[in-house]
Amino acid sequence: MVHCDLVIKGGRVATATDVLEADIGITGETVVAIAKGLPTGRLEIDARGKIVTPGGVDSHCHIEQLAASGLMNADTFETATVSAAMGGTTTVVPFAAQHVGMSLAEVVADYHERAARGAVVDYAFHMILADPRPEILRDELPGLVRDGHSSLKVFLTYDRLRVEDEQFLDVLWAAREHGCMVCVHAENHGMISWMGKRLVAQGLTAPKFHVPSHPRLAEAEAINRAIAMAAFIDQPLMIFHVSTREGAATVRRWQGEGTKVFGETCTQYLTLGATDLDRPGIEGGMWICSPPLREPDDREALWQALGQGTLATVSSDHAPYRMDESGKLARGPNPSFKEMANGMAGIELRLPVLFDAMVSQGRMSLTDFVRLTATEPAKLYNLHPKKGTIAVGSDADLVIWDPEATTTITHDTTHDRSGYSAYVGREIKGWPSHVLRRGAVIVEAGELRAAPGSGQFLPRTGGAAATPSGRPAAELAHLG
Amino acid sequence: MVHCDLVIKGGRVATATDVLEADIGITGETVVAIAKGLPTGRLEIDARGKIVTPGGVDSHCHIEQLAASGLMNADTFETATVSAAMGGTTTVVPFAAQHVGMSLAEVVADYHERAARGAVVDYAFHMILADPRPEILRDELPGLVRDGHSSLKVFLTYDRLRVEDEQFLDVLWAAREHGCMVCVHAENHGMISWMGKRLVAQGLTAPKFHVPSHPRLAEAEAINRAIAMAAFIDQPLMIFHVSTREGAATVRRWQGEGTKVFGETCTQYLTLGATDLDRPGIEGGMWICSPPLREPDDREALWQALGQGTLATVSSDHAPYRMDESGKLARGPNPSFKEMANGMAGIELRLPVLFDAMVSQGRMSLTDFVRLTATEPAKLYNLHPKKGTIAVGSDADLVIWDPEATTTITHDTTHDRSGYSAYVGREIKGWPSHVLRRGAVIVEAGELRAAPGSGQFLPRTGGAAATPSGRPAAELAHLG
Amino acid sequence: MVHCDLVIKGGRVATATDVLEADIGITGETVVAIAKGLPTGRLEIDARGKIVTPGGVDSHCHIEQLAASGLMNADTFETATVSAAMGGTTTVVPFAAQHVGMSLAEVVADYHERAARGAVVDYAFHMILADPRPEILRDELPGLVRDGHSSLKVFLTYDRLRVEDEQFLDVLWAAREHGCMVCVHAENHGMISWMGKRLVAQGLTAPKFHVPSHPRLAEAEAINRAIAMAAFIDQPLMIFHVSTREGAATVRRWQGEGTKVFGETCTQYLTLGATDLDRPGIEGGMWICSPPLREPDDREALWQALGQGTLATVSSDHAPYRMDESGKLARGPNPSFKEMANGMAGIELRLPVLFDAMVSQGRMSLTDFVRLTATEPAKLYNLHPKKGTIAVGSDADLVIWDPEATTTITHDTTHDRSGYSAYVGREIKGWPSHVLRRGAVIVEAGELRAAPGSGQFLPRTGGAAATPSGRPAAELAHLG
Amino acid sequence: MVHCDLVIKGGRVATATDVLEADIGITGETVVAIAKGLPTGRLEIDARGKIVTPGGVDSHCHIEQLAASGLMNADTFETATVSAAMGGTTTVVPFAAQHVGMSLAEVVADYHERAARGAVVDYAFHMILADPRPEILRDELPGLVRDGHSSLKVFLTYDRLRVEDEQFLDVLWAAREHGCMVCVHAENHGMISWMGKRLVAQGLTAPKFHVPSHPRLAEAEAINRAIAMAAFIDQPLMIFHVSTREGAATVRRWQGEGTKVFGETCTQYLTLGATDLDRPGIEGGMWICSPPLREPDDREALWQALGQGTLATVSSDHAPYRMDESGKLARGPNPSFKEMANGMAGIELRLPVLFDAMVSQGRMSLTDFVRLTATEPAKLYNLHPKKGTIAVGSDADLVIWDPEATTTITHDTTHDRSGYSAYVGREIKGWPSHVLRRGAVIVEAGELRAAPGSGQFLPRTGGAAATPSGRPAAELAHLG
Repeated sequence: MVHCDLVIKGGRVATATDVLEADIGITGETVVAIAKGLPTGRLEIDARGKIVTPGGVDSHCHIEQLAASGLMNADTFETATVSAAMGGTTTVVPFAAQHVGMSLAEVVADYHERAARGAVVDYAFHMILADPRPEILRDELPGLVRDGHSSLKVFLTYDRLRVEDEQFLDVLWAAREHGCMVCVHAENHGMISWMGKRLVAQGLTAPKFHVPSHPRLAEAEAINRAIAMAAFIDQPLMIFHVSTREGAATVRRWQGEGTKVFGETCTQYLTLGATDLDRPGIEGGMWICSPPLREPDDREALWQALGQGTLATVSSDHAPYRMDESGKLARGPNPSFKEMANGMAGIELRLPVLFDAMVSQGRMSLTDFVRLTATEPAKLYNLHPKKGTIAVGSDADLVIWDPEATTTITHDTTHDRSGYSAYVGREIKGWPSHVLRRGAVIVEAGELRAAPGSGQFLPRTGGAAATPSGRPAAELAHLG
Repeated sequence: MVHCDLVIKGGRVATATDVLEADIGITGETVVAIAKGLPTGRLEIDARGKIVTPGGVDSHCHIEQLAASGLMNADTFETATVSAAMGGTTTVVPFAAQHVGMSLAEVVADYHERAARGAVVDYAFHMILADPRPEILRDELPGLVRDGHSSLKVFLTYDRLRVEDEQFLDVLWAAREHGCMVCVHAENHGMISWMGKRLVAQGLTAPKFHVPSHPRLAEAEAINRAIAMAAFIDQPLMIFHVSTREGAATVRRWQGEGTKVFGETCTQYLTLGATDLDRPGIEGGMWICSPPLREPDDREALWQALGQGTLATVSSDHAPYRMDESGKLARGPNPSFKEMANGMAGIELRLPVLFDAMVSQGRMSLTDFVRLTATEPAKLYNLHPKKGTIAVGSDADLVIWDPEATTTITHDTTHDRSGYSAYVGREIKGWPSHVLRRGAVIVEAGELRAAPGSGQFLPRTGGAAATPSGRPAAELAHLG
Repeated sequence: MVHCDLVIKGGRVATATDVLEADIGITGETVVAIAKGLPTGRLEIDARGKIVTPGGVDSHCHIEQLAASGLMNADTFETATVSAAMGGTTTVVPFAAQHVGMSLAEVVADYHERAARGAVVDYAFHMILADPRPEILRDELPGLVRDGHSSLKVFLTYDRLRVEDEQFLDVLWAAREHGCMVCVHAENHGMISWMGKRLVAQGLTAPKFHVPSHPRLAEAEAINRAIAMAAFIDQPLMIFHVSTREGAATVRRWQGEGTKVFGETCTQYLTLGATDLDRPGIEGGMWICSPPLREPDDREALWQALGQGTLATVSSDHAPYRMDESGKLARGPNPSFKEMANGMAGIELRLPVLFDAMVSQGRMSLTDFVRLTATEPAKLYNLHPKKGTIAVGSDADLVIWDPEATTTITHDTTHDRSGYSAYVGREIKGWPSHVLRRGAVIVEAGELRAAPGSGQFLPRTGGAAATPSGRPAAELAHLG
Repeated sequence: MVHCDLVIKGGRVATATDVLEADIGITGETVVAIAKGLPTGRLEIDARGKIVTPGGVDSHCHIEQLAASGLMNADTFETATVSAAMGGTTTVVPFAAQHVGMSLAEVVADYHERAARGAVVDYAFHMILADPRPEILRDELPGLVRDGHSSLKVFLTYDRLRVEDEQFLDVLWAAREHGCMVCVHAENHGMISWMGKRLVAQGLTAPKFHVPSHPRLAEAEAINRAIAMAAFIDQPLMIFHVSTREGAATVRRWQGEGTKVFGETCTQYLTLGATDLDRPGIEGGMWICSPPLREPDDREALWQALGQGTLATVSSDHAPYRMDESGKLARGPNPSFKEMANGMAGIELRLPVLFDAMVSQGRMSLTDFVRLTATEPAKLYNLHPKKGTIAVGSDADLVIWDPEATTTITHDTTHDRSGYSAYVGREIKGWPSHVLRRGAVIVEAGELRAAPGSGQFLPRTGGAAATPSGRPAAELAHLG
């Protein structure tokens, strides 16, 4: 065996199945050996006492995304992916977000251009369809899928974003034809709108009222509806950011009936809660995201759902906005909860916070951590085996963890541009000491070593997860 | 005890609780005695060997109703209520159907005028809200409720009729404030529209394709959504015309969680099926109604749901259209299933067909028959104890059944104006020999003895069924 | 109409369906008229401002019953039925309790003899089968059923009482052949025995430890098992004294699958709780019954289950033991919870406590009260229409309630011989002013007017509730 | 890197997570490298075009086991493990089966002696507790666990084997204290006994009547009961050989409530059915096993349950009996189904049949195949990472598959001593060309190359799967 370009020596190497002690040999961008006593590499990193995991795959993050309102979020592809890299995430799947009236192809091209310029980690895109008109689905979608974009997202809430049920069926039908995964933000728009108007009308505008403005039943209802439509079409579906016990139970109920539906939750729904929004003035607005942060009982239910496989991944839903006029205060210095941009940064702390919660605190195993943050998202979106695992032939995307490092989060800890951290004050144990992307050390000792634009696009087909179950509703037989 | 105006002698008298042999004494419009050996009345009817039940309460029927399309259904208040009376139904709750843009008060006044002119049985109205704009709910609804209209209906499907989720919440909220029952036609509009377009586009336009055009999951989904919203508001809800196993299971699931939701099915969903639509040419169009007729397994599930209390009533959903240019063929002689008016007559045969299916065939008990066709609908819409039972002080609305009479249904059997019967060819056992409305014999030996306009309006408040459970969603606490 | 022997004038008469104002005319033992303005009766009772309900039917009570331990409970047929009558209960269904080795026929004859001597209200018997050996089922049961004993009870727990699963199947099979209802005390014996031994071994012997000694899951498990076996055989089954949320949910789950299973709860599970046992010394032993009193959340669930029809009746499970050496202290002055007789008096206060909880406090309607305490138990055990309702031709078993009477329960309030009341200190509103049994006033103003032995045996067949659904397990088809 | 003792060149290497092309380097008994282009090994196997999986782990098989009836099954440790090895299984977990009255320690010692003499693959033992009397649990179990036996099995059916519920609780409690997994054969004994007697009494003794003699509800009931008790104690539980849709649904329901329960099914329940028993004479007896083979709908449900994680493993339940007087005909030449030994061989064909069904037929993925047949059983019984995976540091237990080899099963295909194959006539695609156990090629081209006794015992602690969830029933808090 020839000498490798790089050898990671003596770490505890974790996959979704195994944890073992071995050297990892890398040649070029690829893992070529996992072995005891590998020959000295051209470069070596001493990982004794460390844990080596696959680079994180964050399959749900908003980067340099223009909202329908015209507001751009706080990060560029450069700042967001630097932040991701600093936290151990080496693959991101942000969105190419169509607005009503736009050409989807042009939107995708635009996001490609920006990502190519700025990204320091590898990336794919989910295409957001806010306007799935027939010509988009007929004339643009097939080519975009052929070019490697095999996942779509729709919203069931938000003005100027949401699709009606019939449009959703069009999307599901097109996705099934072309072999895409469909992802959905499932909350009942009417319930949110109705509740928000009444709260505001009563002067209940403080950030904490964001929580009741997104009723729990709005989530469970929309999840049920989205799955019913996907089951009807027999199109695999991913429920994004499940936040409630009822929501998780709804996903589980349909899975039990054989429907091919997957669930995701996010770091914040597992580790933060509604009380975080209950602060003086507008400060609580830093914790406004949708769906909102929930109750302790929901967190318990979500942890359980991860253990049961009801939920398959944990993403960040990174959506950074500054607490200033460029972001959460764009509509004035003292906005109501309805006027503040929804979202918070999370792309960097997702892995450290979950490493702490799962591994250091012992809530789940190290293999579970790898499975939920890297392997499963890579499989669901068909980025595996290139991404999401440590295996011969796979990209050498690796995180070397110091499992004993203790960090207290401050508003300055992270490298995104939101200017604050929702996890401020939290002490966590475990931190990435090195991050490798395709064999290159891009983070070492907290320093970035990657150039903007060094990240690569990851074209992909739909893959196994996006393949229909073969059991559509009986009525569909008529459509041939 | 003074002599009664009328004595029904020696029948087997059935209520929702008891079956007993007794005379029934009537003075004026009211039952004043149920007793053995009543003194001779001024008039007497010999009911020995007969069964006496309360007059039927048909709480779901469309009478002289103008569709949003401009099509009037085939009956007038006179013909429909004559048909009702002939079949033993002495109370009807048709609709006062607002279209978009209309004043609800004017609509109600208009229906009142027509009913007052034609009705031969007593009546109340469900108010259909196709346009629940704020001023309607604020300025018109309170007065209409005060005038005795305490139930509302909304549609979740049909163009120009359906309400959006947020509008539905407005309706539920207003209903809760004013103490009304809310009824809903729950099918997912998007799924129906999507499926219909594709079937038609493929040339699948025969009547039988009406069935797959209303997918089973469209019903279960919309039922779930409607209940979720009602549970959120804590407003009692009636699910009209449940037709599928999955629909009934959805109602049951929510009931089990303590939600105050009621279910109805209709004669046709218990006794007819999808194969009835599968006939040459457009003949199957006579069986087009919505939701469509379903499968044997669904009928089994609906019968079970009636036994379990999951479903509380059986109505007719009478919606008569002639198979000519005034009705089902209004849009041409050879319409697609999408172009035919939905509905069929049923107000007259509801009771005989159910008496046969339940009592003569032994599927349920006589008390169940009374409960499901008279007592429960009267209670749910707060017409009880005046209507729906045989009790001292209640209106003397009675049906005297010849339990041995055998009838083979033909297209001429009934007195509505649709010109055909969906039950044609069926042989049934049991038929009303006399029908009394408030003490007056209005049908005897198949002859009508009531004048148009002799029916009375039944003003009512919401009553117990329409009273909230007191357990709204937690979020509502903020609204006070 | 000739003059009646007795006329109850002007009360509010309640059945399970209706509440109305009328006179009730009684001739002999029978209601012959419910009417306005009945002719003066030979006797009259002024019931204006009062409520008249059917006499209560207590379908689960232990009277003069010898335990397998040799302990006789505190009441004789005379004292128990006097107590029943005082509280408005005019029909009881106590047990004829076989012990192992006994002839069932002899047991039944023995109980008959004692009842005939002492009873002041009418009665039927459930036959307890502690030893369902083949010759009992083959040689004795058929004759006993022919003689009018059409319900059986088995225990799944208690030493010397419980049947094994295979014996239970024998009982179900015989019951199906002969047309009996089967009732079951469903708690897992192993869990109770296991837990009891460990508690005692740790010195946790105070009365309050009775509660954890009957684990909640022991109830839910045994209910599930009992129903599974009954569903297998297709034999209707009554689950006695459901006490937990999980237990009620188990009943509901099987009902939803179409299994013919009924549920009962008791006054004490609706109105008392585990904290009642937590008192100094052995005082808490007065509240020891099995299953034990539970938590507030269980009470909430049981109330809901009554409203949903999941549970059909509320009985007393009257099982009186004195707090002395004749009863709870038979095994010493300071017994562990395992050594105290299980049970408490309840036959007298069942109706007043429930009238207060349901009607006076408004938790349920007056018709619900009648349905749950009289009509449904009468129907389930085929005592209706003779018992359980107010109808022409039915027995004139009536309770006239003073709805405004307020009573504070003391240990001396009731007429059983247990010497204490579990409801001590409770103030309740509503009390029987008169109780009639077959036309005779047996209680008036708190005075008894009936002779021991004036109660009659009520022979009965299985009836509708005990009729199989017709859907046995597939495997049974082989047995023909 | 020094040269390995053995290099597997160029195969497609599959774990439960990944499939990749690489060489596998083995030194001594251990995998030391997975890499591209490994240096030439002392020995090499060309695996190009082949698939390399972990050696199978068969966690449920009966080897040289004496039944309580005195019947020994057909295999010795030598023949059974040779058969296992021939089919690619390199780790087995047979039983050390206590009978009533026996010392468990002596039983285990005895099985050890026999295994040490005969086994050609590695092994651990589940200890069957037929007689969990206190002194066994107190005096013997702790030492046995310390010696590496950390899983127990109990039967809820079979005479002289089954434990009563209270004994089961004792076992669960002891298992929790000592950190063992508990496995259960969950069928309701009473239902089986009751049904068997009646079938036989009616002369229905042919093999096919074995199926109805084990009612479907007997499985679902006992699964529910076993889990209820395990949930009560908070002791992890494995449900062996789930065979019915209802059984799988029961497991899933409890998992959804957070109970730590695992499910297994077997090759035969996925691929054979009740019709296999329906043959002339006693031939069908070859397919008698318990629970019995079921219906197509059950197989569909079991496949789905494997996909959902409801069921975690597929074992063989190898229990070979010859169709002669040494086995199935021990009680005569023409036995009833009740008189025939239950079981069939399966240790050898488990992997080939499942490889065909899952991988060749495309029903599941190759990683699923590995997960269900090797990794998960190894993890559940804490044999991982030594067994169940291909990873550096793990035992070099490997199967090299020729994915194109086609085999038609005959009664002579396999190497067990049952003399027949339940899969006779089946054509399957994919067959092991080499099998390695701890680095040694023990099967090559259908030839065995391992000496009896070369298999090793695998001592183990309970591990993660056997660790309680920390959420016992509330009542247990009293026991400290």
